[in-house]
Amino acid sequence: MIDVHAQLPRFGRLSLRRVGVTGIKKPLAVQRADRVITLTASFAVAVDLPSDRKGSDLSRNAELLAELVDATATRPVASLESACSEIAGELLRRHPYAKVAEVSASAEYFLARGISEDRRSYEDYLLLAEARAVRNGEGIELFRAIGAEAVGMTACPCAMSTCRERLEKEFPLLADPSLKDLPIITHNQRNRTRLVFDLPPRVEIEADAILDAIEEGQSSPTFAILKRGDEATVVLNAHRNPKFVEDVLRSLLSGVVRRFPQLPPEVNIRASTVSEESIHKYDVMAANELTLGDLRRQVAA
Amino acid sequence: MIDVHAQLPRFGRLSLRRVGVTGIKKPLAVQRADRVITLTASFAVAVDLPSDRKGSDLSRNAELLAELVDATATRPVASLESACSEIAGELLRRHPYAKVAEVSASAEYFLARGISEDRRSYEDYLLLAEARAVRNGEGIELFRAIGAEAVGMTACPCAMSTCRERLEKEFPLLADPSLKDLPIITHNQRNRTRLVFDLPPRVEIEADAILDAIEEGQSSPTFAILKRGDEATVVLNAHRNPKFVEDVLRSLLSGVVRRFPQLPPEVNIRASTVSEESIHKYDVMAANELTLGDLRRQVAA
Amino acid sequence: MIDVHAQLPRFGRLSLRRVGVTGIKKPLAVQRADRVITLTASFAVAVDLPSDRKGSDLSRNAELLAELVDATATRPVASLESACSEIAGELLRRHPYAKVAEVSASAEYFLARGISEDRRSYEDYLLLAEARAVRNGEGIELFRAIGAEAVGMTACPCAMSTCRERLEKEFPLLADPSLKDLPIITHNQRNRTRLVFDLPPRVEIEADAILDAIEEGQSSPTFAILKRGDEATVVLNAHRNPKFVEDVLRSLLSGVVRRFPQLPPEVNIRASTVSEESIHKYDVMAANELTLGDLRRQVAA
Amino acid sequence: MIDVHAQLPRFGRLSLRRVGVTGIKKPLAVQRADRVITLTASFAVAVDLPSDRKGSDLSRNAELLAELVDATATRPVASLESACSEIAGELLRRHPYAKVAEVSASAEYFLARGISEDRRSYEDYLLLAEARAVRNGEGIELFRAIGAEAVGMTACPCAMSTCRERLEKEFPLLADPSLKDLPIITHNQRNRTRLVFDLPPRVEIEADAILDAIEEGQSSPTFAILKRGDEATVVLNAHRNPKFVEDVLRSLLSGVVRRFPQLPPEVNIRASTVSEESIHKYDVMAANELTLGDLRRQVAA
Repeated sequence: MIDVHAQLPRFGRLSLRRVGVTGIKKPLAVQRADRVITLTASFAVAVDLPSDRKGSDLSRNAELLAELVDATATRPVASLESACSEIAGELLRRHPYAKVAEVSASAEYFLARGISEDRRSYEDYLLLAEARAVRNGEGIELFRAIGAEAVGMTACPCAMSTCRERLEKEFPLLADPSLKDLPIITHNQRNRTRLVFDLPPRVEIEADAILDAIEEGQSSPTFAILKRGDEATVVLNAHRNPKFVEDVLRSLLSGVVRRFPQLPPEVNIRASTVSEESIHKYDVMAANELTLGDLRRQVAA
Repeated sequence: MIDVHAQLPRFGRLSLRRVGVTGIKKPLAVQRADRVITLTASFAVAVDLPSDRKGSDLSRNAELLAELVDATATRPVASLESACSEIAGELLRRHPYAKVAEVSASAEYFLARGISEDRRSYEDYLLLAEARAVRNGEGIELFRAIGAEAVGMTACPCAMSTCRERLEKEFPLLADPSLKDLPIITHNQRNRTRLVFDLPPRVEIEADAILDAIEEGQSSPTFAILKRGDEATVVLNAHRNPKFVEDVLRSLLSGVVRRFPQLPPEVNIRASTVSEESIHKYDVMAANELTLGDLRRQVAA
Repeated sequence: MIDVHAQLPRFGRLSLRRVGVTGIKKPLAVQRADRVITLTASFAVAVDLPSDRKGSDLSRNAELLAELVDATATRPVASLESACSEIAGELLRRHPYAKVAEVSASAEYFLARGISEDRRSYEDYLLLAEARAVRNGEGIELFRAIGAEAVGMTACPCAMSTCRERLEKEFPLLADPSLKDLPIITHNQRNRTRLVFDLPPRVEIEADAILDAIEEGQSSPTFAILKRGDEATVVLNAHRNPKFVEDVLRSLLSGVVRRFPQLPPEVNIRASTVSEESIHKYDVMAANELTLGDLRRQVAA
Repeated sequence: MIDVHAQLPRFGRLSLRRVGVTGIKKPLAVQRADRVITLTASFAVAVDLPSDRKGSDLSRNAELLAELVDATATRPVASLESACSEIAGELLRRHPYAKVAEVSASAEYFLARGISEDRRSYEDYLLLAEARAVRNGEGIELFRAIGAEAVGMTACPCAMSTCRERLEKEFPLLADPSLKDLPIITHNQRNRTRLVFDLPPRVEIEADAILDAIEEGQSSPTFAILKRGDEATVVLNAHRNPKFVEDVLRSLLSGVVRRFPQLPPEVNIRASTVSEESIHKYDVMAANELTLGDLRRQVAA
């Protein structure tokens, strides 16, 4: 058979940054401390293409995903990001003309959480992982990222302040010092926050620790099972911890400094948060990206 | 050319209920009282297929949509549902083997609204329309539906009640009679409510009147422009009008009885509402379907 | 605590058909013949609400989902639809005021398939299940549905015919009798086909058998791993088996008659198919719904 | 009223790169050569936030969008990207603490196109625009991007080659020299291609010219109205112009060099393309980003 992909390009001898496949879904078995879990993961993989080659051998991408990911059914991997790293390295081995390989993956992820021990059930989160393999002389350099996303709740501090002013006029007793700390109405809403770490070689982070950091940044985590008294607890927590999206992001990033003292300063951090405003039809958002070293300096200042 | 569609079916002589095209997007010009607006409408159209015919002449569907919808650029139609009706009737004329034609359409729709006159801006809503043409002897019977969807806000009455109990223990002064009507914290969230009317011939309803009915059913409408004091107004309104999804649906349906006295009892009503709970990662919903006659009897009981 | 849900409705004493929760995601462990698989399932559950009750006890829905679904981690269920049935029955027990409970669920599902034994890998499909429990005197009647969706490929028989006419003019040798069966170019595309069975009590169907029936109805199944020669095999198969969406549906339904002789005639069948046309920006679709008894009569005619 | 946003941050004195609103939908009236069209545009706007300020005045974002976009109903703008530029500049004026403002917008867009003059109808495309305003001493620097996306068709050159080899064995006459140019079957599919230009000040490009360049890069454009003979024309065109995603991207970029000789070399180009493979359940993609100067050098080499 003629190797059409290896022919010279017909429509311009241009190198391309990225050629690959997206939306390949696979069951991925991951070894946790106490048990094996199966993620329904969605993968995108790509390599660069030199200017003298018509096509990338895309069938190799699906083949190696099948070899590496399907094999986890009997030999679970350590994590979603370790699977991505292995795939990125193998992509470079199977595309000898490529200099860079990129892999990204996402998967729904469940943790048993609850407002109390007897209310625990599986809450759903999102896991994110990326890997990038770069040919470097004879060897291959590997860059990895690991992230997660959690849905929680925010309560607005500004509307809380203006509602208090308004209500104190209507209910003068509200100004009584004993009611100083009474939580006041405001708008509250779903908040979706994402945190991703770009990691140097041999540095590891646990996804569960990322999710803990995110949920601490929100006004309150949310739960599937809330009996009536529990609802009041969540509502009270959120209103005693009112936060703009700006506050969520700063809380989260301050928490990262405190929670991950062992990480080296060159770790890059990408954080973003979206509140699906209850008083508007649109969303509000905040995002930041900086190295852990810069973050530590800002927090220490 | 061989007419492949008119051949006998090769894989079983089965009649089919519905064969058509979906996701055809078109700009549709609609004449409003004071001006012409252009909707970006998405259409789905289908007809039935008899057991002795291999295929439906689908190119006629795209052709008639182009003729009827594209023509509105110079001759605007009265409404999205009148466009659907015209398309459904024309489908039967161009598919002589069909007995039933069905059309549905949706479009984003903007109305200038605001919490006060000087805060008005375009708020976005969804318009919905359906039409069904049925061959009846020599003639064609036409059935139409018109509906709309609006995003608003709900505040939970149950968590408000349990929060009050909890707060009265911590803040005894809260039990003072002068604070009886003080709005108490609860969870509030985005609510998405939809109302559709199946109309008999010659009965008309205005989309704007449907949207008014929906927004009255929610704890509060929401707005793009809210300066700081306005936010408090919306939050206060919502907390003085706390509603479960069940309450939203019953308010809305009671409002329909009051707002549309001129409609005949055989009008069928489909209503549904979804609250994107701020204290959970999942949504809660309520739905109902009944004739206006039944609804009036229940409300009068 | 005051039971707000049990109070009388404030906004109209209307009964409601359906009140519940949607979008609850859970890991569901299912026992297959040879192993346990874990589905990431999304559930919607609802019950009706009488006219004299303000709210449905929605926290019970999340609680019972956690009890029943989370428990499968240690005790796998037989299938997605048996989980739905169990949930529907339990909903009626925990909502004593309700007469009807409805559950629906969907989950991505993987089967090891390949164009040949050495090309097998996990292909992704969609599983669907529904259950409805109706209070009937002292007892509960249970109705179940099981379905699945598969992505495959269709090649258009009409464009194939017109392309042949056109090409025979340009290449007279093409009319040579030896080339009568040469597959001719046409447009081909992704096809998404869904088949759902409404089952009477004690009647069971395997999801894998439903997927086999769907893939037989399409011009060709599709595969993740196709080395170069394999691509030609799939393309040839599809072009030797050109099908309109109408053909896909009729093939599928004829196959159902042949594949499921043991099913009783009252089984209801819902089938639909969508081809994401390569020559248009929109999709074409066909749908049918009938009992197996009616289907058998039509096929036999 | 207390200005909560102007207070010092409580959760860490960190500057934030981006705080804003997303998903604001507005009708935007745009002046074309011959008429005014109304786009249903979706906007996202954001500014940076200094470390000493708790919140960004987000109500100003909605307010200025209403002022600028709603006003186009009576005074149409020149283009989506000029609207974005105006908004970005105004964001900096209304957020005096911000140094950078970013705006992005997308809108469905219709052009009357057809395979022949008498088959013209509105085809749907996507318009994209971005603007970035940076405070620079006393002034403001403005960066703009304009882009578009079109759905077309690709036919695979590799499967075409392997199908020919396979068919020549089965149909020896196919090797006859007179059939050398006979188009051979392959898989073909929907292709979605996007092209975005980052523009220096005062450089303009027409969206319609971008869409022309994209459609030339695909194996064939697609059309809503295709009578039977027209389908053969599109299928033949696509099979005489078989293209990998790599080919689509290179054709497109070569076309950019030829079509836009007047553009300066510092224009940055972002191009990406996705083919929704008919023989797989997943998509294949290619992407590139480079300056027009680099592109010209590569094409000239």
